Amino acid sequence: MIVMNDMSGSSEMYIPTIEDVRAAHERIKPYIHRTPVLTSSYINGLVGGEMFFKCENFQKAGVFKVRGASNAVFGLTDEQAAKGVASHSSGNHALSLSYAAGRRGIKATVVMPRTAPEAKKAAVRGYGGEVLECEPSTAAREAMLEEVVARTGADFVHPYNDHRVIAGQGTCSLELNEEVADLDYVVAPIGGGGMISGTCLAMSDVSPSTKIIAAEPKNADDVYRSFHAGEIIEDDAPQTIADGLKVSMRPRTWHFVSNYVSDVLLATEEEIIDAMYLTWQRMKIVIEPSSAVALATILKNRDQFAGKRTGVILTGGNVDLNKLPWMQKQV
Amino acid sequence: MIVMNDMSGSSEMYIPTIEDVRAAHERIKPYIHRTPVLTSSYINGLVGGEMFFKCENFQKAGVFKVRGASNAVFGLTDEQAAKGVASHSSGNHALSLSYAAGRRGIKATVVMPRTAPEAKKAAVRGYGGEVLECEPSTAAREAMLEEVVARTGADFVHPYNDHRVIAGQGTCSLELNEEVADLDYVVAPIGGGGMISGTCLAMSDVSPSTKIIAAEPKNADDVYRSFHAGEIIEDDAPQTIADGLKVSMRPRTWHFVSNYVSDVLLATEEEIIDAMYLTWQRMKIVIEPSSAVALATILKNRDQFAGKRTGVILTGGNVDLNKLPWMQKQV
Repeated sequence: MIVMNDMSGSSEMYIPTIEDVRAAHERIKPYIHRTPVLTSSYINGLVGGEMFFKCENFQKAGVFKVRGASNAVFGLTDEQAAKGVASHSSGNHALSLSYAAGRRGIKATVVMPRTAPEAKKAAVRGYGGEVLECEPSTAAREAMLEEVVARTGADFVHPYNDHRVIAGQGTCSLELNEEVADLDYVVAPIGGGGMISGTCLAMSDVSPSTKIIAAEPKNADDVYRSFHAGEIIEDDAPQTIADGLKVSMRPRTWHFVSNYVSDVLLATEEEIIDAMYLTWQRMKIVIEPSSAVALATILKNRDQFAGKRTGVILTGGNVDLNKLPWMQKQV
Repeated sequence: MIVMNDMSGSSEMYIPTIEDVRAAHERIKPYIHRTPVLTSSYINGLVGGEMFFKCENFQKAGVFKVRGASNAVFGLTDEQAAKGVASHSSGNHALSLSYAAGRRGIKATVVMPRTAPEAKKAAVRGYGGEVLECEPSTAAREAMLEEVVARTGADFVHPYNDHRVIAGQGTCSLELNEEVADLDYVVAPIGGGGMISGTCLAMSDVSPSTKIIAAEPKNADDVYRSFHAGEIIEDDAPQTIADGLKVSMRPRTWHFVSNYVSDVLLATEEEIIDAMYLTWQRMKIVIEPSSAVALATILKNRDQFAGKRTGVILTGGNVDLNKLPWMQKQV
């Protein structure tokens, strides 16, 4: 069992505060982009309300997760940092942790399933990370990570069940709120819940009247079911084009979802692909399928968002340009 | 013969001035976006210099041509405007003129070859323009346009050989220079020369030490040959993926190219596609092939741009997402 991800020094689960988010923002500013907020009059017209898109697809490494990873990496003491950082991920967290470690000049080791696309492994190595390949199972992944940590003393940075990571992700909404005041809603996609937790954490302090909505693929609706059951229900190997959203919540993220999220909205695979296509076509920006889930749920529930001011977190833009979902649909 | 595009009231060719550009900027501001200037540390690293990308792909109608079209449309007297505007175009100028006319509430008539993609005709109609289809030849196009103008009294707004259009395109570099001072170069793609002419016009006044470079597809190298011959040489039905750059210069644009452009650089079809792919992948923005020609020539001539500060005009983002050139290459 891995418990190294709780860095609070206590066996109690540490819940980060707005002060942690503000400290994270100061800490990571030199290493991240302050991403722009874009609008589209065409999409506003479709919804009948005002939408403000926070473009984390333009973030370093192409994804918001650089915020949390950088907060963890740059919060280490020099002594801790010398031993490096480690995690398991088949995607954006691996990139983000490698980027942050590279900026600090320390080692990042990432356990990735051997079945992960070669392009993703190459991208992690491109940021200076070391890739260790394991069999594609949770047990194999955790066993190999435990071995790495035992051998090297590396700091385990969980992709989302880590208070430093959640505080880091919260900086995204701090920036959004600085640029666009008086939002009625913020809608963000949810997988493990790191972004949504950071959003709840920040907005509940700086704009408590703003409602936070989690957008989830219908094919991976564990958060929807958990939200209505009042306890964490895990998905069993969900299949969705939104590959960043297949994982399940953990206690720290469930804390925020259960206490702060107003609603969980679902979108089908086709709705996700249509929203992704619409965003590329009309906003001229590249977003990954996971990022499109938020807009998909908004378009599906226009009445709720008509006449409102809604922030939308576009979480990332890392997509294989040779395999676009609307083209796979055609072929 | 059509001579209606000279609105100077004189039989002499009127050459616009920096005052025309400034007046255009005030006139069109309510109808255009002030587009962002983006940077990419990855591409800077590739070139070994600083690149500043002016993102006209985010412009209204997805293309810089809205600037020139809006300047023409909103510069009309009410009496002129009541008769509407007209032009011929198979692409971005048709969209732009329809957009601008729609904002003023007047009629735009666009003569398009019947072979133009249905999606483009639909997009023009979506902005409120009327599409008249003609046989796909220059003679047919000009004859139909002449008939429209004779019948309606509409104002003919040429896509680039029009001083109002050139002054409008110049506003793009005004904005770029306000955000990024002391550029060594500005590189922009060239077809008929409207954008390059506006760039020369603006930069020669606000930043005279900045060199202007025209980037052209090798497969449509009429500007390159004209530049070295000292007179306009026209292409004969060139074939290039950069479909916005197939047209040839006219006297007004040749005036600027021959007097102000420092150099004309060429890129092959493969280099254009590679630069387009790189921009999508690393900058997470959608640009059309014509827009990628500038970066393609820079990457091909790195030594010239290493250690320099270079502005790059990304001219537009209107591309068929179902037919991406790197996928056509594969299939």
